[in-house]
Amino acid sequence: MKKKLSTPTLRRLPAYYRIVCEHLELGKEYIRSSEIAGRLGVDETQVRKDIAAINCSGKPKIGFNAKELKTHLESFLDVSNTKKAFLIGVGNLGIALAKYRGFDDYGLNIAALFDNDPQKIGLKIADKEVFHISEFAQKAREYDIKMVILAIPGKEAQKMANIVVESGIKAIWNFTPVSIDAPKEVIVANQDLAADFVILSMQLGDC
Amino acid sequence: MKKKLSTPTLRRLPAYYRIVCEHLELGKEYIRSSEIAGRLGVDETQVRKDIAAINCSGKPKIGFNAKELKTHLESFLDVSNTKKAFLIGVGNLGIALAKYRGFDDYGLNIAALFDNDPQKIGLKIADKEVFHISEFAQKAREYDIKMVILAIPGKEAQKMANIVVESGIKAIWNFTPVSIDAPKEVIVANQDLAADFVILSMQLGDC
Repeated sequence: MKKKLSTPTLRRLPAYYRIVCEHLELGKEYIRSSEIAGRLGVDETQVRKDIAAINCSGKPKIGFNAKELKTHLESFLDVSNTKKAFLIGVGNLGIALAKYRGFDDYGLNIAALFDNDPQKIGLKIADKEVFHISEFAQKAREYDIKMVILAIPGKEAQKMANIVVESGIKAIWNFTPVSIDAPKEVIVANQDLAADFVILSMQLGDC
Repeated sequence: MKKKLSTPTLRRLPAYYRIVCEHLELGKEYIRSSEIAGRLGVDETQVRKDIAAINCSGKPKIGFNAKELKTHLESFLDVSNTKKAFLIGVGNLGIALAKYRGFDDYGLNIAALFDNDPQKIGLKIADKEVFHISEFAQKAREYDIKMVILAIPGKEAQKMANIVVESGIKAIWNFTPVSIDAPKEVIVANQDLAADFVILSMQLGDC
């Protein structure tokens, strides 16, 4: 049975996972919480608490068995279970996301791309075909898709959100800089890059 | 004097700011915490607490004066104070970030772009010139730059991080999918898109 983890803990786990994988690639068998904490600039006690929350225990003075920790993280992050999504918008951001190396490691499979530009239809980007947006509803049924990634201009965001919601989409990962309205049962995750910048900028202001 | 806000509160404020701006553009004078909460799918009490934390108060049954709330948010988010940054990596992601509309609103000014591809040097993207990476140190002094945005392949990330740290950079916004080592006094903010995906995917799993 998986425990419910807090969002802050959940946000840190993928970083731990990345570090443990890098550690194993270097052929190291054990990893200490202090090493993880140092790489991420977080508190060591916090790292230990987070890892305890996923039921992994280390050895005093030696640390965690890296393979074991990796297995625990994989289970909690559910990375072996592939989740399919469609990506809408084949501009620079959309192409960057389609090619983003980190997603595969976490089980995200961008199954197809959509755009309304006739020049882009039929192209293949990172092995994914670009379809016209008019085919969205049919393809979503065909591929059994529940999640879309929205990488279109802000002014088209709401119209497109309405289309995908009508097609039965249950989660929208919104990379546009505007907020979108959706029915309560649809999850909208705003990838607010500006918000991330604000936090970094405030930290820098403290220097 | 500005209060220290918690990171979760800080993460929500830019979204409030965006919604208040959109509200004002529609010509609406007042905004209720329930409207903000509804747009973002967060708890109404949380919205009220966050807004109280930035010393803004509303009127019962009417809500917050939208202009006043905008001013408070602008002050806390320090949006009128421009922060300059250099962007390294003129691939799809770099170009998308250089063109990203949301940054201007939060005072982020990407002053110049850098790449090592001779074909890209001298190009202008969103009015920003592309320089060769060998010019980085000199340009950083010239422009008085303390922050870089890293949008290069993961395998080049550490080498580039070393170069920018040697040039006196104090904050690195890391869009590569690998973690980087930097001296303690340098802030590294990992834009871990995979981590954001994991959270969305877990929420969807609960549906």
